[in-house]
Amino acid sequence: MTDIRTRELRRPVDVAEYLFRRLHEVGIRSVHGVPGDYNLVALDYMSQCGLRWVGNCNELNAGYAADGYARVNGIAALVTTFGVGELSAINAIAGSYSEFVPVIHIVGQPHTRSQKDGMLLHHTLGNGDYNAFASMSSGISTTMARLNEPHEIATLIDNAIRECWIRSRPVYITLPTDMVSRKIEGERLETSIDLSQPPNDPEKEDYVVEVVLKYLHAAQRPVILVDACAIRHRVLEEVHDLVESSGLPTFVAPMGKGAVNETHRCYGGVYAGTGSNPGVREQVESSDLILSIGAIKSDFNTAGFSYRTGQLNTIDFHSTYVRVRYSEYPDINMKGVLRKVIQRMGPLQRNAVQRISNTLPGQEQGSSEQTVTHAWLWPTVGQWLQENDIVITETGTANFGIWDTRFPSGVTAISQVLWGSIGYSVGACQGAALAAKEQGNRRTVLFVGDGSLQLTLQEVSTMIRNNLNPIIFVICNEGYTIERYIHGWDQSYNDIQAWDIKGIPIAFGAKDRYKGYRVTARDELTKLFADKTFCSAPYLQLVELHMPREDAPAGLKVTARETATRNK
Amino acid sequence: MTDIRTRELRRPVDVAEYLFRRLHEVGIRSVHGVPGDYNLVALDYMSQCGLRWVGNCNELNAGYAADGYARVNGIAALVTTFGVGELSAINAIAGSYSEFVPVIHIVGQPHTRSQKDGMLLHHTLGNGDYNAFASMSSGISTTMARLNEPHEIATLIDNAIRECWIRSRPVYITLPTDMVSRKIEGERLETSIDLSQPPNDPEKEDYVVEVVLKYLHAAQRPVILVDACAIRHRVLEEVHDLVESSGLPTFVAPMGKGAVNETHRCYGGVYAGTGSNPGVREQVESSDLILSIGAIKSDFNTAGFSYRTGQLNTIDFHSTYVRVRYSEYPDINMKGVLRKVIQRMGPLQRNAVQRISNTLPGQEQGSSEQTVTHAWLWPTVGQWLQENDIVITETGTANFGIWDTRFPSGVTAISQVLWGSIGYSVGACQGAALAAKEQGNRRTVLFVGDGSLQLTLQEVSTMIRNNLNPIIFVICNEGYTIERYIHGWDQSYNDIQAWDIKGIPIAFGAKDRYKGYRVTARDELTKLFADKTFCSAPYLQLVELHMPREDAPAGLKVTARETATRNK
Repeated sequence: MTDIRTRELRRPVDVAEYLFRRLHEVGIRSVHGVPGDYNLVALDYMSQCGLRWVGNCNELNAGYAADGYARVNGIAALVTTFGVGELSAINAIAGSYSEFVPVIHIVGQPHTRSQKDGMLLHHTLGNGDYNAFASMSSGISTTMARLNEPHEIATLIDNAIRECWIRSRPVYITLPTDMVSRKIEGERLETSIDLSQPPNDPEKEDYVVEVVLKYLHAAQRPVILVDACAIRHRVLEEVHDLVESSGLPTFVAPMGKGAVNETHRCYGGVYAGTGSNPGVREQVESSDLILSIGAIKSDFNTAGFSYRTGQLNTIDFHSTYVRVRYSEYPDINMKGVLRKVIQRMGPLQRNAVQRISNTLPGQEQGSSEQTVTHAWLWPTVGQWLQENDIVITETGTANFGIWDTRFPSGVTAISQVLWGSIGYSVGACQGAALAAKEQGNRRTVLFVGDGSLQLTLQEVSTMIRNNLNPIIFVICNEGYTIERYIHGWDQSYNDIQAWDIKGIPIAFGAKDRYKGYRVTARDELTKLFADKTFCSAPYLQLVELHMPREDAPAGLKVTARETATRNK
Repeated sequence: MTDIRTRELRRPVDVAEYLFRRLHEVGIRSVHGVPGDYNLVALDYMSQCGLRWVGNCNELNAGYAADGYARVNGIAALVTTFGVGELSAINAIAGSYSEFVPVIHIVGQPHTRSQKDGMLLHHTLGNGDYNAFASMSSGISTTMARLNEPHEIATLIDNAIRECWIRSRPVYITLPTDMVSRKIEGERLETSIDLSQPPNDPEKEDYVVEVVLKYLHAAQRPVILVDACAIRHRVLEEVHDLVESSGLPTFVAPMGKGAVNETHRCYGGVYAGTGSNPGVREQVESSDLILSIGAIKSDFNTAGFSYRTGQLNTIDFHSTYVRVRYSEYPDINMKGVLRKVIQRMGPLQRNAVQRISNTLPGQEQGSSEQTVTHAWLWPTVGQWLQENDIVITETGTANFGIWDTRFPSGVTAISQVLWGSIGYSVGACQGAALAAKEQGNRRTVLFVGDGSLQLTLQEVSTMIRNNLNPIIFVICNEGYTIERYIHGWDQSYNDIQAWDIKGIPIAFGAKDRYKGYRVTARDELTKLFADKTFCSAPYLQLVELHMPREDAPAGLKVTARETATRNK
């Protein structure tokens, strides 16, 4: 269908092709989602644009998977269908918004004419309101791009992708069925979308750097504390250089795990107030200047708001502001500030850090105990992990247990400590494992509880379908242990149906692309960890890890106690 | 904690107890949902109020299940937790809103003080906005009740439950953790919530009845056409009496299946324009007056808007208005109008109806074909079903195939033709089967495709956990057949991972509470249908029903063709 406008285009390209080429350009290779009749025609354009369609089992899981893919790949895309599909995914998108993960959510919509006429189509509320669902997504999307008018589509797409990247948060793009094949100007594709961070005002930046340096030079016992937004807002290189150049004792918050090399001579462990690694609390809380980079001081990230650090001793670096003690400097990005601080700081006062290792706690060393407990498990996992592994932990015991695991260098940690949607990790594992496969030969390891697995188990099927080879540890402890610690220790609502978990991939048709294990004793796990085939198998592996129902990591215990009190 | 206000209460009762006693009073016996730390304390009150906690595997499924439970039981309740839980369920709630299903959605929230202080808690967007999620639900809830102030809580609860029932749509109730055990006046519980429909203005009602009767008496070939809202707005008794007293030929739209006794002498079959049962289209479209009761003329309910009926020949009865030809009578409920029409109509002109039977179409009779095709399956199912069965069909081939199944009397049909969220039927089956069990001895039968099953399979586990015994037919046809008919016949995005479906309940720990079957030929299904044990087993049964990938019911074919055209 050639109209006059098309003939005016220098290099006409279909809207779907334009959109998908842009996704490819920013580094996306696989697109998550579920087909639906309002997005089917668009899906036809995937392969010609160098994109693979993952084909998830449902949209919530697809959203989780896109989030996991983005955390490894840098950015991700999700395609759903109008109403039913997009709303199924909305919890995952809210999680990406909450935790600053850049996901491009593309929603296949009915024909613009059907929308204007308010037709009584399937997947509508039956009231002719075609804006209802977009409105619901507006609060969890950093930009809304409604592709209704061909002349503005390219601008809207480019802007949405740029905002997604820069703000590191989800954007929402509608793609009505009649727009998919409309022609727009393709010449723009010759110029890449500018994803660079807008530079700070140099005078302002210099001013802030001077203030930071004044306090830094005056400090006797400065430390560095790295948190989630250092990862999400892409200042890990600056963090690395700061640690390296300053030699300051460096710690991470739970959500900052993986941000620094945990084998580095300056690394001291996880700081989470009363839930900190042994010795860390004393080092951080006795510091007279904390360089806090990208903090998210949420309840679960601080062991229940148990930080005992003063604002007078803190400099907060963020993506949109810097705060030195109580002085706030808005509209400034930490990246440029950190770079100049590194360049200008010179020699500093510094204390030696008490380094953290993977040795077992005293009471576990030489113990003949065979029960797999959290106190034993997590340091042991640290001994087994390999460089550049991707480690995903579920909201629950795993998310707290991992505080006690010291990583090899290069590890990416994925957890959803702030949003904390149970079941997230299974979807995220699929996305992360796929991104890992695309990056070469990184290993993906998941720790999920038997309760959380039930929410999203079908994404194990998607892993099989896509020939992914994560190692999945299912902590079998008979239900929602994190909730038992908060309330209802023996209540049946915290119980679950007992599954043959090892059998599930078989029911999903895994055939010879799978191996399952059942572990009930420490020696069995130690043996498995020593098994070379297990450590690098090209197929999916699932380990039932049987642990006591009543056991939990120390960090969970203190956090749950605080949560229970706050809920009262 | 007794405060002054509590001492003023005549019969103090905790908020959660008040709420749950009201749920019990309106007929709810089981509550669906997933535990979360913001709702745990409330769950403790369930059993003392005579309620059972179902314990679903995830919130979307729980929402579907609540919807299915409501369709059998009359009303249902769903409990989720703030943010993560409620958003996971939001697609199900939107479906209940779209299709007029009364579901009370109770959301456990953080302490009101934490909300006022904008604390950085888990399950938040990290921006202190505690209204974000309620706002997202406001467009799909007929009433929002925020239980923040003890003095108004009882009124808000009673009003929400009443609105849920009267409007037959979801309501949203927040329950902050600190409100759960607050004392309110319990004396109100001695008076039931008034669920009666507000009566019509009698003068107006009489006026409308006269107009209706004028056209009815003048008509030569009047017919009755019953649709979804006759079921949802509870006028089935009036419909039954109208059919019985008038003797008029009676038809149902697809969403109205189950509204009338299909073995009745007046019943003529399903009218869906070009997708109608044989002979029905001619009878309906040649009528000079259609009494259309509770119509929802959506694309999938009309085989792609293929009605060829004129408004000049139509009287529309609805819950909030009546329309006679082009004259609209707003703010009037059909219930009172229908009752008076029945009382006053006297003898009418009427044609004999061409009745519908369960005989197979000519070309299938005596055929030696063994392949299970849709043309053969659905009439055959009609021969097998029993009185009072509950029959659930998934959006896909089953939702269209069921048009060709004539029901025994008393059958309840559950399908989601307007909202059409795939995977719905599995959750709905769990809820419906539970309601059926509570009602005594009704059988629950589900038809779902292998593609749709993948979205929500874990609710099969919930069925096992709750000792439910539905018969589940999984149509195994290698993916999303409904979508193939719309677009992408051979595209891999319409394929799915091949599962060992029969093995899934075993992986879910069904043990001896389950039996699985594999059917690939007509004779096998006929034999199974004749097996008394199969027909009334006290345990879960799942039948893999292998059918050709390319086969579809006639109704789906015409509808998909129209949808594909509209999307272009």
